[in-house]
Amino acid sequence: MGLDRKIKYGMVGGGPGSFIGGVHRAAIALQGDIELVAGAFASTAEKSKQTGAELRLDSGRVYGSYEEMAQKEAKLPEGERIDFVSIVTPTYVHFPIAKAFIEAGINVVCDKPMTTTLGDAEELCRLVKKHDVVFALTHNYTGYPMVKQAKALVKKGILGEVRKVIVEYPQGWLATRLETEGAKQAVWRMDPKQAGVSACIGDIGSHAENLARYITGLEIDELCADLTIFLPGRPLDDDGNILVHYKNGARGILYASMISVGEENNLRIRIYGTKAGMEWHQEDPNYLYVRYNDKPEEIYKRGEGYLEPVVGANMRLPQGHPEGFFGAFANIYKNAVNTMRAKMTGGKPGEVDLDFPTVQDGAYGVNFIHKSVESSKARSWLKVDYSPPK
Amino acid sequence: MGLDRKIKYGMVGGGPGSFIGGVHRAAIALQGDIELVAGAFASTAEKSKQTGAELRLDSGRVYGSYEEMAQKEAKLPEGERIDFVSIVTPTYVHFPIAKAFIEAGINVVCDKPMTTTLGDAEELCRLVKKHDVVFALTHNYTGYPMVKQAKALVKKGILGEVRKVIVEYPQGWLATRLETEGAKQAVWRMDPKQAGVSACIGDIGSHAENLARYITGLEIDELCADLTIFLPGRPLDDDGNILVHYKNGARGILYASMISVGEENNLRIRIYGTKAGMEWHQEDPNYLYVRYNDKPEEIYKRGEGYLEPVVGANMRLPQGHPEGFFGAFANIYKNAVNTMRAKMTGGKPGEVDLDFPTVQDGAYGVNFIHKSVESSKARSWLKVDYSPPK
Amino acid sequence: MGLDRKIKYGMVGGGPGSFIGGVHRAAIALQGDIELVAGAFASTAEKSKQTGAELRLDSGRVYGSYEEMAQKEAKLPEGERIDFVSIVTPTYVHFPIAKAFIEAGINVVCDKPMTTTLGDAEELCRLVKKHDVVFALTHNYTGYPMVKQAKALVKKGILGEVRKVIVEYPQGWLATRLETEGAKQAVWRMDPKQAGVSACIGDIGSHAENLARYITGLEIDELCADLTIFLPGRPLDDDGNILVHYKNGARGILYASMISVGEENNLRIRIYGTKAGMEWHQEDPNYLYVRYNDKPEEIYKRGEGYLEPVVGANMRLPQGHPEGFFGAFANIYKNAVNTMRAKMTGGKPGEVDLDFPTVQDGAYGVNFIHKSVESSKARSWLKVDYSPPK
Amino acid sequence: MGLDRKIKYGMVGGGPGSFIGGVHRAAIALQGDIELVAGAFASTAEKSKQTGAELRLDSGRVYGSYEEMAQKEAKLPEGERIDFVSIVTPTYVHFPIAKAFIEAGINVVCDKPMTTTLGDAEELCRLVKKHDVVFALTHNYTGYPMVKQAKALVKKGILGEVRKVIVEYPQGWLATRLETEGAKQAVWRMDPKQAGVSACIGDIGSHAENLARYITGLEIDELCADLTIFLPGRPLDDDGNILVHYKNGARGILYASMISVGEENNLRIRIYGTKAGMEWHQEDPNYLYVRYNDKPEEIYKRGEGYLEPVVGANMRLPQGHPEGFFGAFANIYKNAVNTMRAKMTGGKPGEVDLDFPTVQDGAYGVNFIHKSVESSKARSWLKVDYSPPK
Repeated sequence: MGLDRKIKYGMVGGGPGSFIGGVHRAAIALQGDIELVAGAFASTAEKSKQTGAELRLDSGRVYGSYEEMAQKEAKLPEGERIDFVSIVTPTYVHFPIAKAFIEAGINVVCDKPMTTTLGDAEELCRLVKKHDVVFALTHNYTGYPMVKQAKALVKKGILGEVRKVIVEYPQGWLATRLETEGAKQAVWRMDPKQAGVSACIGDIGSHAENLARYITGLEIDELCADLTIFLPGRPLDDDGNILVHYKNGARGILYASMISVGEENNLRIRIYGTKAGMEWHQEDPNYLYVRYNDKPEEIYKRGEGYLEPVVGANMRLPQGHPEGFFGAFANIYKNAVNTMRAKMTGGKPGEVDLDFPTVQDGAYGVNFIHKSVESSKARSWLKVDYSPPK
Repeated sequence: MGLDRKIKYGMVGGGPGSFIGGVHRAAIALQGDIELVAGAFASTAEKSKQTGAELRLDSGRVYGSYEEMAQKEAKLPEGERIDFVSIVTPTYVHFPIAKAFIEAGINVVCDKPMTTTLGDAEELCRLVKKHDVVFALTHNYTGYPMVKQAKALVKKGILGEVRKVIVEYPQGWLATRLETEGAKQAVWRMDPKQAGVSACIGDIGSHAENLARYITGLEIDELCADLTIFLPGRPLDDDGNILVHYKNGARGILYASMISVGEENNLRIRIYGTKAGMEWHQEDPNYLYVRYNDKPEEIYKRGEGYLEPVVGANMRLPQGHPEGFFGAFANIYKNAVNTMRAKMTGGKPGEVDLDFPTVQDGAYGVNFIHKSVESSKARSWLKVDYSPPK
Repeated sequence: MGLDRKIKYGMVGGGPGSFIGGVHRAAIALQGDIELVAGAFASTAEKSKQTGAELRLDSGRVYGSYEEMAQKEAKLPEGERIDFVSIVTPTYVHFPIAKAFIEAGINVVCDKPMTTTLGDAEELCRLVKKHDVVFALTHNYTGYPMVKQAKALVKKGILGEVRKVIVEYPQGWLATRLETEGAKQAVWRMDPKQAGVSACIGDIGSHAENLARYITGLEIDELCADLTIFLPGRPLDDDGNILVHYKNGARGILYASMISVGEENNLRIRIYGTKAGMEWHQEDPNYLYVRYNDKPEEIYKRGEGYLEPVVGANMRLPQGHPEGFFGAFANIYKNAVNTMRAKMTGGKPGEVDLDFPTVQDGAYGVNFIHKSVESSKARSWLKVDYSPPK
Repeated sequence: MGLDRKIKYGMVGGGPGSFIGGVHRAAIALQGDIELVAGAFASTAEKSKQTGAELRLDSGRVYGSYEEMAQKEAKLPEGERIDFVSIVTPTYVHFPIAKAFIEAGINVVCDKPMTTTLGDAEELCRLVKKHDVVFALTHNYTGYPMVKQAKALVKKGILGEVRKVIVEYPQGWLATRLETEGAKQAVWRMDPKQAGVSACIGDIGSHAENLARYITGLEIDELCADLTIFLPGRPLDDDGNILVHYKNGARGILYASMISVGEENNLRIRIYGTKAGMEWHQEDPNYLYVRYNDKPEEIYKRGEGYLEPVVGANMRLPQGHPEGFFGAFANIYKNAVNTMRAKMTGGKPGEVDLDFPTVQDGAYGVNFIHKSVESSKARSWLKVDYSPPK
């Protein structure tokens, strides 16, 4: 793989009480060739040190702020300094953190949604280009091997032309006002300052949009959204149903919900074309269902020899040994890091390496969130037809 | 059961090449106490005779037209004449046929959607009241035992207040223009003269609407529809996605499709309340799934002793012996006929007997179809809030 | 179909409190061209009359005993007398009843297991041959359309040579001693005088054996059984596990249980060959799963155009409109009656008509039950390799 | 957590072409506090070095043989030397390797089955006791969170007394003679010298036995096995069906197969007690199904708040974020390492820490394998009733 050492990374966020920071770290650990060496884990130096100690990091690389971290890491020699930063904070600080590291010439892996405003998102697009860094967004669900199989089959034309896309993402955990009981994950998602203009569409509707676009390649022409606040007192939507017109003429439904009691994390997609239909479930991710009008339904299974090559490049276990969320997450990092390695060694990243969500995907998603909110307020169809800065 | 004889019925439609006529007859046969004695099975006397002979009916009771049948049957003495007529023709002739029999004082069981115009539907409401006949509409999917269990659990409050309803009905059989190849079932559904203003929403979207309303009791306040004609040359929609606001504040998605390749007859509903969520699938009808945030998911199974009493009144086999489409269909007839028996013997039909779709349900459905078409054309939300004549 | 009238039948058993009698009658009714005209429904004339009246039969055709019925019906002219008798009593009286009707020249449809002794079973084989009547045994599970698809695919060689068969039939309803609480269905099944040498293997293990043999064509070479009485006080087995060697070298497991709490009627079969494996579930009967090592799993679905022709001949509803237990049961009657019609009109029944369990299947099953009991007592492998009299 | 540093380990086996070595390493990496520092990865020093380099290990800690490794590591100071060794070689060398490290006072985690002979297995029991080391066997399937939930529910008595256990483990990958085509995983498993007396029961039947015993606590009284070699030329079984009598009177079926075409890694268990039944599938591991005769089936889901505390201690992700094979595997290491930490800091490991398969489980499994082979050869029931040296 060229560069003959482990890749080094630092983390911003992921301190005491964080959930997603630990997930990023465990997922990365699956890779074996990427190691955590630095961090600004929390908003206070004290909490940051606490997490650094728990992770048994060199205390000299545990920083009190991201600004300090960006500045000091940039001064370390290549091979010692971090090769990339992983940003796992609430949304509203993604932009300044990412900007600081990009401007320091450090690659970025950033959690989603990318930013709270479209202006910030587009600015990141320009900065990534200007500073020529690798930027990956952790729309982790596109890391699942069978999502990649789905995309490959669509590309091969197995569905014919896509006519209809149903993508749904119901959860039930916010069916009561957990955010008033101090549940950290709920608090920031329901705080407009930290989360931006939307909670439900922002947090999970954006995953649904990204998944549908990743597999089908379809872009939204216009949409008609119906966002709801079911729990009185909430400032942001906890549910949203959206009608979609795609640019190729396909129709779609996209919905996300945080108040669907009894649902866990039930991201699902069904895609219907002129020749076949397809279905995938995040909660049962090792299978892909393809249906025809004129022959038996097919179940494609992760790990089997008949799959497209991209699947093999994105899995770690043989058939029947279930892979899950960590493996998908790890694939985003794996591919981004392989792209970094290629760049660092003067090589050209392959198609498989470049298979991760980009800063443009992030801008696309932020625009989608804002248009959904706008359409819902206007109670009408709204033109989208958006292209982020390249 | 009071009346000490079999109930006699006649059929209009269901002649050579018909599919649904045979389904009605077989479903009715499951009951054992209802017999076919007359019919006007086709648009020509010759074809009608042919079907009558195949069914080994007395040729004197096989008529060349529904007008003749209504007139002559009405003159036969009670006990000999038909107790009800079953109307299984394409939609556009439901109205004149139903009108003829109602005015002859004969009970009616009619296929859905009830009529092609709302005026006709409302006129039927008035005629049924005026002539005091029993009128049942075969929205057969509400005949499934576990749909009745769902309705009973909602009524008991197991879901709390309903917040969200997702009802979907994808089929794939019209993904190509079968109607141009002479497929009888396709031809009339895609003919505005015979089917009315809508194909997809009219034929199956109306089932979805009826199912959701039957289980939840919720009425539509407003809707925003997106109907599509995917196959060039078709005069009517073959797909439709609808956002729904219910009068209690609940939100919903209702969609139906005839072009979803690989789908068979996949009517499904998910209902989420403040306390639990619920799911039922027509293609796997003997199970009802109830989900909570704080205890294990439950699977209710037809035939078990812990179910609500209404289930026992609407099934014919013990647990683990799967019932299907015929049993559900038969329940519509069973309950309507029990209501007829009660009336004929001067008794009062019980709640279980009255559990079948009425002429008002029919008018509600016809209005829903028309509002969906209208909203889609206007590309906007449209007020529904409709009450049929009582 | 030749004979231009409905087929007439009588029933022995199926009186007050019976479950299976009503099931037979409802299943037959699905056919439309078979009518009940006579019966000896119970062990007393009074109870028999009661059921006859409820079924609105001509009281002159409701008999006080099966002997009277066989004798009097045989004297009626053809076209008026019953064309066949349906025997739905507990096992121990199947033999004398069947014998009486066969000797009267009347065709027989008999419930399973066929007899309590092998001697009786073999005598029935001889009587059927001697009197040249049609005899069908209601191993109803082989009537399911997708079981017929399975058999057809095995015959086409899709599995290659069969190596392994796992057939299982767990129920949970006898996990307590229901038979001491007067539950009629439990009482006779646990009474050695009425049920014979086995309860669990006799009642449901025999279905499992028949299903495996029907689909694969494999005959048992030897078996090693482990029958258990879990509930103290029971005279007969309520559970049984059996290792099987088939004559072609295949290995198998066959198990049945009445004490598997939480199971309903979970007959299932998996068959593995050199090229593919196959699975079917009675509780989800409209699907057949076929699995390969080198291509995606396939789900075959009842009603689709790609199925073998035999499926179309044994179903009544299009795809996605679930058929269940009644349809499978009706198919046994349909085919047996079509065979009768062919014989009565001097024709030759086709392969599709002859597709029902025969008197030889009955003898095979009775021998299997007895060998299982014997092997279990001896705690050892036992040779089977049995051929019933042709 | 007491000991304030990462735990260090070395690996024997897991060199070029190995599958399971990489699995162990990735699973361990999920933990974050265990690091690989040494290894004797292959049978030649050259190959061992190759793997060491790929893993970026200090070349001074990469050894040419396990003997050298045991000897040299033992001489390193505590904190620098490995805290445990992970043995991931074919079965036949488990014994000498484990013996060497145990005698060097180094803790051992060993792959299964533990040894090829019962004598060796019992000698390991004695050595572990004598040298007071921690010894864990990677029966990884008992590491799944929902298997632990199952065990806890059985212990709470939710099933009542267990009456029946059906555990099955079909695979299809050896349905052809892959071992003659150089497939490394197939070669050693089908070589009596490397694998011992059994291939199928040894490799996967032993997992099935361990899983059943882990959840239920039941021990085998006697068994009757039917092992088969389907592929001519194979020296060892590729399929086995076993009837089991447990010491409490429960009955069971245990089967394993490598020739069940279309099966991937389908370990499944069903357990029936006097009050409820239970089912778990390895290929869908985040769910546990509990069934009753008198209330709805329940689906327990990993990550939910209503589960037993042991589940929370053995998972890494919230509900709806699927965990898989790696997580289960990691739990074996996690618990064994926590036990080591407790011992190393003079503490007492808790019940949760001690929840991993022991050297006695290993001896129990080796005895089970041998008794199965013996019973099959004798074609008869065979007494087991075995207790390993404590």
